[in-house]
Amino acid sequence: MIKPNERLDDLGINNLSIIQNPEFFCFGIDAVLLSDYAKGHKNERILDLCSGNGILPILLSAKTKASEIIGLEIQKSLWEMSLRSIKYNNLSDKVKMILGDVRDSTSLFDRNSFNVITVNPPYMKACGGKKNDTEEVRIARHEELCTFEDIIKSADYLLKQKGRIYIVHRPLRLAEIMATMVRYGIEPKGMRLVYPFIDKEPNLVLIEGIKGAAPELRVAPPLVVYDSPGKYTKEVLKIYGYDT
Amino acid sequence: MIKPNERLDDLGINNLSIIQNPEFFCFGIDAVLLSDYAKGHKNERILDLCSGNGILPILLSAKTKASEIIGLEIQKSLWEMSLRSIKYNNLSDKVKMILGDVRDSTSLFDRNSFNVITVNPPYMKACGGKKNDTEEVRIARHEELCTFEDIIKSADYLLKQKGRIYIVHRPLRLAEIMATMVRYGIEPKGMRLVYPFIDKEPNLVLIEGIKGAAPELRVAPPLVVYDSPGKYTKEVLKIYGYDT
Repeated sequence: MIKPNERLDDLGINNLSIIQNPEFFCFGIDAVLLSDYAKGHKNERILDLCSGNGILPILLSAKTKASEIIGLEIQKSLWEMSLRSIKYNNLSDKVKMILGDVRDSTSLFDRNSFNVITVNPPYMKACGGKKNDTEEVRIARHEELCTFEDIIKSADYLLKQKGRIYIVHRPLRLAEIMATMVRYGIEPKGMRLVYPFIDKEPNLVLIEGIKGAAPELRVAPPLVVYDSPGKYTKEVLKIYGYDT
Repeated sequence: MIKPNERLDDLGINNLSIIQNPEFFCFGIDAVLLSDYAKGHKNERILDLCSGNGILPILLSAKTKASEIIGLEIQKSLWEMSLRSIKYNNLSDKVKMILGDVRDSTSLFDRNSFNVITVNPPYMKACGGKKNDTEEVRIARHEELCTFEDIIKSADYLLKQKGRIYIVHRPLRLAEIMATMVRYGIEPKGMRLVYPFIDKEPNLVLIEGIKGAAPELRVAPPLVVYDSPGKYTKEVLKIYGYDT
């Protein structure tokens, strides 16, 4: 089931594993934090956009009580790997991965058909940042096939009224994120900044938006990743599933 | 110079003091943090909107090198107090207080005539929150005479290209703040959240916007107010001007 250059990584929860290929794209702490920040309740349907190798759907199958989790990924090589990971973890009843384009989501799915959307999107503009990566990494990191507005436009179409979207992104993009969400009526209701150290600038932001909600944003206490270099804080160890 | 029911409060910097009336509105930590967050350089003109008893212009006269600082306040009782504070501090050469309405700023001042705007605006919507205060407190706290959009519209008119606005507000309003600033081309470029304790939700946010700048928001490390109940952190003690 595992091909050359691939590896099988333990996810630290429910004995789940994931197949990864370091030449393509391996999940990072952002996916783990998002899987913990997102909430999925009983009988809810979750759609994960920009799903990559399926890390979010696989983690969400353990971390939420959602009845159905669908991942949408545009890159065939990553999507193909995600199918094998789902099979390996015996998650085929609950988790499905679809090969497709976020911008086609109005034809791929029904309007107002999801309770929750999660997304760990490309962080960088199409024109910015390094481009000397493999095509897989470049597309995962840069907005070449999907902009932030494409995501919010899809969320507006696909979410039920009061449905939630959970996003992880770079704080650098925060003004555009908020402005775009407000413009599409996906109200930012929750936010948590992720600081590598307590005295450093945050490098990630977690956001909860609710379709059609009234304004008022609750900002959570800081999420600090490291106590000292290489040493995770208790909270992050817990999110990773280590006993503390 | 000090009337019945008024008091003279030491500002902890340059021997400055301010006349306050507890029945009207006394400045809080938000004004002090904003005066420290705002930057004013040599030969720059600063306009402080919603200036109240003049606390920001008075603090900024000591904290920045700006050549001219003007405060605009709509409430006559607070404005009249601010005039006496400026006289008491011998700041009349540098600081001026004008009685007027933010919504009239296009007729009060020239277009593109300020390098910097500061504002500690009413935090609450006109319809929300307690209303059993004095009229002075109610107007200072609620958007009865001035909405956040009125402020940004004025800033757009009054600031030079690349001029800066420094705002203190409630994190609850953050999505609307960002969306409004982006809409008027005042790009949010800096943000710092103020957490009362390191493990609590922030209750204030400091924002720097730059007129006509390209997007990209720098979020600063957390600003934590208390180490333990009643005990300020070193950073806040320093901002207040205490030796640490």
